[in-house]
Amino acid sequence: VNKDLVKERKSATFDKELLTEILYNGKEGVKRRRYLQNIAIQDPYLKSLTPWWNRDRETHYDIALKKAVYLNQLMEKMNITAPIDMFILREAAACQENNPLGLHQVMFIPTIEKQGTKEQIEKFLPPARAMKYIGTYAQTELGHGTFIRGLETTATYDPKTEEFIINSPTLTSMKYWPGSLGKTSNHVILMAQLHSQGKNHGIHAFVVQIRSLEDHRPLPGITVGDIGNKLGYEGMDNGFLMFNNVRVPRDAMLMRYSRVERDGTYVPPKNAKIAYGSMVFIRAMIVGDMGRSLAQASVIAIRYSAVRRQTEIRPGGEEPQVIDYQTQQEKLFPLLAASYAYIFMGYHMAVEYFRVTAEIERGNMEEMQSLHALAAGLKALSSDLASSGVDRLRVSCGGHGYSLASGLPKIFTNITPAMTYEGENTVMYLQCARYLIKMYAQVASGQQLSGFISYLSNKPRPHSGVNEALKLEDLIELYEHAASRLIQGVAMKMQSLMKSGKPEEVARNMCSVQMVQASKVREVIPWKL
Amino acid sequence: VNKDLVKERKSATFDKELLTEILYNGKEGVKRRRYLQNIAIQDPYLKSLTPWWNRDRETHYDIALKKAVYLNQLMEKMNITAPIDMFILREAAACQENNPLGLHQVMFIPTIEKQGTKEQIEKFLPPARAMKYIGTYAQTELGHGTFIRGLETTATYDPKTEEFIINSPTLTSMKYWPGSLGKTSNHVILMAQLHSQGKNHGIHAFVVQIRSLEDHRPLPGITVGDIGNKLGYEGMDNGFLMFNNVRVPRDAMLMRYSRVERDGTYVPPKNAKIAYGSMVFIRAMIVGDMGRSLAQASVIAIRYSAVRRQTEIRPGGEEPQVIDYQTQQEKLFPLLAASYAYIFMGYHMAVEYFRVTAEIERGNMEEMQSLHALAAGLKALSSDLASSGVDRLRVSCGGHGYSLASGLPKIFTNITPAMTYEGENTVMYLQCARYLIKMYAQVASGQQLSGFISYLSNKPRPHSGVNEALKLEDLIELYEHAASRLIQGVAMKMQSLMKSGKPEEVARNMCSVQMVQASKVREVIPWKL
Ligand SMILES: Cc1cc2nc3c(=O)[nH]c(=O)nc-3n(C[C@H](O)[C@H](O)[C@H](O)COP(=O)(O)OP(=O)(O)OC[C@H]3O[C@@H](n4cnc5c(N)ncnc54)[C@H](O)[C@@H]3O)c2cc1C
Ligand SMILES: Cc1cc2nc3c(=O)[nH]c(=O)nc-3n(C[C@H](O)[C@H](O)[C@H](O)COP(=O)(O)OP(=O)(O)OC[C@H]3O[C@@H](n4cnc5c(N)ncnc54)[C@H](O)[C@@H]3O)c2cc1C
Repeated sequence: VNKDLVKERKSATFDKELLTEILYNGKEGVKRRRYLQNIAIQDPYLKSLTPWWNRDRETHYDIALKKAVYLNQLMEKMNITAPIDMFILREAAACQENNPLGLHQVMFIPTIEKQGTKEQIEKFLPPARAMKYIGTYAQTELGHGTFIRGLETTATYDPKTEEFIINSPTLTSMKYWPGSLGKTSNHVILMAQLHSQGKNHGIHAFVVQIRSLEDHRPLPGITVGDIGNKLGYEGMDNGFLMFNNVRVPRDAMLMRYSRVERDGTYVPPKNAKIAYGSMVFIRAMIVGDMGRSLAQASVIAIRYSAVRRQTEIRPGGEEPQVIDYQTQQEKLFPLLAASYAYIFMGYHMAVEYFRVTAEIERGNMEEMQSLHALAAGLKALSSDLASSGVDRLRVSCGGHGYSLASGLPKIFTNITPAMTYEGENTVMYLQCARYLIKMYAQVASGQQLSGFISYLSNKPRPHSGVNEALKLEDLIELYEHAASRLIQGVAMKMQSLMKSGKPEEVARNMCSVQMVQASKVREVIPWKL
Repeated sequence: VNKDLVKERKSATFDKELLTEILYNGKEGVKRRRYLQNIAIQDPYLKSLTPWWNRDRETHYDIALKKAVYLNQLMEKMNITAPIDMFILREAAACQENNPLGLHQVMFIPTIEKQGTKEQIEKFLPPARAMKYIGTYAQTELGHGTFIRGLETTATYDPKTEEFIINSPTLTSMKYWPGSLGKTSNHVILMAQLHSQGKNHGIHAFVVQIRSLEDHRPLPGITVGDIGNKLGYEGMDNGFLMFNNVRVPRDAMLMRYSRVERDGTYVPPKNAKIAYGSMVFIRAMIVGDMGRSLAQASVIAIRYSAVRRQTEIRPGGEEPQVIDYQTQQEKLFPLLAASYAYIFMGYHMAVEYFRVTAEIERGNMEEMQSLHALAAGLKALSSDLASSGVDRLRVSCGGHGYSLASGLPKIFTNITPAMTYEGENTVMYLQCARYLIKMYAQVASGQQLSGFISYLSNKPRPHSGVNEALKLEDLIELYEHAASRLIQGVAMKMQSLMKSGKPEEVARNMCSVQMVQASKVREVIPWKL
């Protein structure tokens, strides 16, 4: 090991093994983690594959698919089944690489499980589990990502044949972006506007076969392919898909919550907010993911900065390690701190998710909205920060950061889409802010708030408690105070705009930059604004 | 044309033809520009090449080279010789693409012209002009980019044979990063430590052949190749290069300013700051380049935002163009404004460069340092802003920004290295700040400053002139005031640290984050910090 690294490691003022245990679920967790990582790192087959920094697009996809299949087999053989174990092994074997079979596992199968009837689950799941059906989740269209209600793909029920006719009526109705669609999948969960008896009943999910189970060719009436090169995601076959009046049986529609009867009668769901929960969970996962990605990039940049020596600052003296430049520390350390913050925040949110979900099952919806707002805001803030942060870390490595060999471009190109998918960030900040404004109105009308947003009810102390001996509580109080003030400011501006005659949506738009700012501060930012 | 675009264009409050003329050198300039662009855009050969978004690395390089050769021939045939014309044609034919013959033209030939003796120019230039010699500029090594004096490649003079022995004594002495080195070049300008008569005389430039003129194979003792994949620069063969005691004749050393006599006597240059000027020029070019790149990305993102409609904000209403969201405007418009600022700043700096250079030739060095500091600071600020700005613009296009088809990833990956090459940005900010601190000391000692930094002498008005009717002069005054205050703060902090016994370099390091901040503000930032 490089002597500068050894020196830096020796000078740590904390017990690094202890910190590792805090991060990874105790002594046993760390042991298991290392065991799994070693399997992945030492596996001769995985070692034999062309490294990430030396692949063309075709090789990227080829290897991504090979790894996915191989790892599935390996885990079956070794009986590795706990989700956390599978996650660790995959991360070590294909760190920041795409998994073309991933959406099959995390979207296709779970959607059938959650939204299918008993009969549908029995019909679709066995071939899906056996990988005879390989599926993905086709939602986004060329024209619509954010605004789901604007999707244009139609599924029109024909009671004569008891079939749905799936159609892509416009160019913009083309499904565009879904992962694993371009080459891998033979089935999709299709999100489409349901029409029956001359009425539009809104977006529903359908299980639709798109490619032959024999030769993997597109079925008649279906146009499907890969959308081409992207900034990253080389191993993922994001695809496009169009339907020309393709007929599917009635039970293609997942009917656990809503139904179309044989005669075409539509039966709506009892509770419209079914999908709420899993969205929160995915966003919580993203927060932790962003923390880990930032941590990986920080480790690379910090180790490099310890090893790299540049610029003689005293004539004839040794060149300092660049980590000793104050400017370099300012690039590295806040981002290292932020990675810890988001990793812990990710854990915390997962715990909260399970707690609040349990409450909801018990009929207590009280905290659902606040959890939802928190998840939206933190998903946005963590991905904003991680994306620009990883890029700063890359640049902090000088020329070598630009080389794929540094690993930094890979992390950047792989995580930056998190700003866009699972809720576009600006839209997320605005959602969070709308909730905060609503809560502020409750405080203004004399209600006491609890949970995440109780701070809105706090009266700030007349003088700030901050002095030379900086205490964490004082900083948090400052943030809470700033966050309250910002929300108050926006809420009052909106009121006055509406009083002056602006329609609500116009007033809201005129306040939206401030709303984004307010929700950023609300997330107790471990980063300067 | 899309109807939303037509509507937006109609609503412009300025004469867009007039603005174009201001940007591109009057009516005649615009006419010529369009003529040249059309040649490039309509050329059947150029049209026939695989588009940028659909190439693998090999195709990228192949096409980059084909384009470079074809354009050289085309311009010769059409007698297009003015540098500005050549620039426009190249930009239109290969916008944000690499030119593997570029360094030959802008570094190899000019270095020989400027630093070679009459005999050397006669010897090297004809084959270089005829493209028999294809050259590049090999400076950066694996171990050193920023700190040139730290380069380790040696050129040791052997008076017995009147040759230099070129050697790479360590792994870190490997040349690493030079463009056109990996595949294209058969010659390099090599920057190496000159040793003669047992003494090291520092870095000097040598013309060294590295590949055979017959079969393009590396010559004996030379190891050379491509450094592999990068975040971008796919069309450029950035390379590595090592020498194992390779002998070259005495006249390989460019001897216009310094010399090694036959017997090994070293004759130093009269003026050590020869290269100063052209560095300023290149940095000024980068400023304009960053402005243009930001403008390209702004145009893409703004047009897209006019065409894109997303999210129904009034139930049942039409979805608004996303450009009408306040948050979207906040992403787009400051960057559009910044592109104008940097384009004009680039022009301005080129003009200043020629003016100050003329002064220097007349023996007046007064403004040299201040121009140098300005160029360093603005190079850094413009590339910082353009790199993160283009990335923001990409994200503002939602999912489609991530696709290579949007053009945005291409601009980003092509310009982000400008933060690193031609003077690493942090190092540039610090250089600028050191000059400002020096000037501040002059003001403090009662001197009156002129030119770029005269504001340091200004006494601010007791009250800010800013009121409801915002005037540009008031804003500039505010900036100048802030910039003065920041420099004053740093200068005083440094003094007090040194008084308390810190060595100068330690004190400077302890102030360096503030120094960077101070030089950022100094550049009259068209952007929030
Ligand atoms: C790598 C990658 C993988 C993907 N994988 C999948 C997948 O597997 N399946 C799938 O279905 N989709 C997938 N997507 C698509 C993704 O979900 C969408 O891109 C995302 O939902 C954003 O929608 P959009 O692209 O339509 O952006 P838009 O919503 O059109 O956003 C464009 C701009 O408009 C702004 N804007 C939009 N609405 C508002 C508003 N109401 N207020 C203020 N500003 C607004 C945004 O802030 C943004 O700046 C993927 C995308 C990427 C990049
Ligand atoms: C796309 C690309 C093309 C290139 N083309 C060429 C070419 O054609 N020819 C060629 O010779 N080279 C080329 N280079 C190399 C380039 O010139 C160097 O990468 C650049 O000079 C930076 O040096 P470095 O990589 O050694 O970074 P370093 O100087 O090692 O920087 C690493 C970190 O240390 C910090 N640091 C370094 N010194 C100081 C200091 N004194 N004070 C504070 N912080 C400091 C930096 O801010 C940075 O954060 C190219 C590089 C790239 C990325």
